[in-house]
Amino acid sequence: MGAQTWRGDDVAQLRSLPSPYLLFLGEVSADAYAKTAFGLRDWASDRCVGECALPGCTVTTGLPRMTPAEARFRGARALVIGVAVEGGMIAPAWLPLLVEALDAGLDLISGMHQRLGDLPVLAIAAAKTRKALIDVRIPPAAIPVGSGRRRQGKRLLTVGTDCALGKKYTALSIARAFARRGVDVDFRATGQTGIIIAGGGIPIDAVISDFAAGAAEMLSIDAAPDHWDVIEGQGSLFHPAYASVSLALLHGSQPDVFVVCHDPARTHIMGLPDFALPSIAEVIGLTVMLGRTTNPNIVCGGIALNTSAMDAKAAKTLMAFESARHGLPVADPIRGGAAFDALVEACLK
Amino acid sequence: MGAQTWRGDDVAQLRSLPSPYLLFLGEVSADAYAKTAFGLRDWASDRCVGECALPGCTVTTGLPRMTPAEARFRGARALVIGVAVEGGMIAPAWLPLLVEALDAGLDLISGMHQRLGDLPVLAIAAAKTRKALIDVRIPPAAIPVGSGRRRQGKRLLTVGTDCALGKKYTALSIARAFARRGVDVDFRATGQTGIIIAGGGIPIDAVISDFAAGAAEMLSIDAAPDHWDVIEGQGSLFHPAYASVSLALLHGSQPDVFVVCHDPARTHIMGLPDFALPSIAEVIGLTVMLGRTTNPNIVCGGIALNTSAMDAKAAKTLMAFESARHGLPVADPIRGGAAFDALVEACLK
Repeated sequence: MGAQTWRGDDVAQLRSLPSPYLLFLGEVSADAYAKTAFGLRDWASDRCVGECALPGCTVTTGLPRMTPAEARFRGARALVIGVAVEGGMIAPAWLPLLVEALDAGLDLISGMHQRLGDLPVLAIAAAKTRKALIDVRIPPAAIPVGSGRRRQGKRLLTVGTDCALGKKYTALSIARAFARRGVDVDFRATGQTGIIIAGGGIPIDAVISDFAAGAAEMLSIDAAPDHWDVIEGQGSLFHPAYASVSLALLHGSQPDVFVVCHDPARTHIMGLPDFALPSIAEVIGLTVMLGRTTNPNIVCGGIALNTSAMDAKAAKTLMAFESARHGLPVADPIRGGAAFDALVEACLK
Repeated sequence: MGAQTWRGDDVAQLRSLPSPYLLFLGEVSADAYAKTAFGLRDWASDRCVGECALPGCTVTTGLPRMTPAEARFRGARALVIGVAVEGGMIAPAWLPLLVEALDAGLDLISGMHQRLGDLPVLAIAAAKTRKALIDVRIPPAAIPVGSGRRRQGKRLLTVGTDCALGKKYTALSIARAFARRGVDVDFRATGQTGIIIAGGGIPIDAVISDFAAGAAEMLSIDAAPDHWDVIEGQGSLFHPAYASVSLALLHGSQPDVFVVCHDPARTHIMGLPDFALPSIAEVIGLTVMLGRTTNPNIVCGGIALNTSAMDAKAAKTLMAFESARHGLPVADPIRGGAAFDALVEACLK
């Protein structure tokens, strides 16, 4: 067709996605369904020129609302589908605006399961305009099986007591804090939002299971001895559906340091009321035990608490309590402050 | 094209593969490269009418050698590629004989990574003869994410200290022993050879990692309270490349009982000299710890030793030693005997 459809191998190359971005919000009516857009606003604001939406959308990132043509005029190079919907399908109602974006000279970037190029209307429009259709949820084609070989450089992995409680934000916060301290660091993205924020990465959950650990090895290759990869965690070792993704990431990442992410308001695994949340201590114990397979020196660097539902005083009390209980630094990366500085310093030691 | 190309959904249906089989050995020169053919000879001999090979093949299953036309005349309905080669590619040299098989009225069954229908010469011949091209290494299309929901019926999973040391043979032996005792039992295959032996199953290592535990749930669905699924294990929880496949299978299978398979001659993980083999006790401990996520009542039923490299007396001494050390029944399923009866009885209790 002549459309430039990117392959997973392109996506795996860090910082290769065309930006700045125009964030597309669809017709969503709750912030939770636009988490990709919010992630980009929070972590790649210098690469976001504005947002666009369909009638009915009640959510905003706070960025100026504009048409694709206006965004192109202001320098945007790609429209990002900022919507995260269950099932990952591209809604037919989005297509006119997506075609308008191609016509305006923007590439399309999507983290949906459904592939942009599988929609004939987009494939035809992309071929005509010679713009790219970029699906970031496609893993590279030639992933080797894991080797377990020790690689040079330092690695930090965020792990969690559950899904969706701050592993990406924690990894991004730590990577940014490392960089501010002059540390040579790369954030390594493993999910679609992280990949668009970073400009590259590998969607671990989309890799065939035989190759998942190999994909994690490929994501954090040999580096200089004092270089750090800060790797976005996925799932939880205690999750009945996704633990194997977490384990592949742990084995393949061979982290020197891990940080446990936890939401104190959560009592059971999200969406699975019969599954109690594991304790932080259980997550530390199991991560060390399993992580030793590929890195005998793995240690827990601290705990990141998502205290977004608490006031500042309650959060501080809880962090002090958990810190004393586990003998580890505890912080909320979003709140930052001295507690977070202590966590960052502990990870670097 | 009109070719009947089976999808993963067809393969997942147990006992739906066309048989009896003609076993194709290619031009292999070592038994290890024909393990699918040997597995079928050993475990599905009533469905094997003979073997065929190319010039240069020095291996035999002991079954009569015949042409595809002779096999068809003797009742064969499918030719099975009995070769297991690194990389899973179909060699160009095989194609004339595979086309001859289609012309003779046989379907083709393959566990290779490369798909039969991707080879134009086979696609054309299958369309012309209206025979089926059956790739058993394709998982079903619509695998749900794991739910962790407890299912009715009993489940046994074989696990191991490493890959390729007897998990499939142990599961098949136990399933057969259960059936002989009048137990309502199904062997559940998770790899290509097991799938062709059983006539169906799901190739867990080919499932996208987000859905691997869900695939294991799909493989051993709700059953009568006294029905047993005996599930073929994969990999090892201590393997740096494949542990995540093992964990998905453990979580999704939610076994009541597991049997640890071990090769006492092995000192390190196959192909990875830097990785010491875990001890049997470590495998028991970790399997119980991780298995409790989806089945709090999981227990170890015993240990299956692969003593093929030992004489009968040495094997007996070692089995007695390991049994005393672990307080569990220990047997070599291939040797059978009273020790294996004790292991089977322990699993049923």
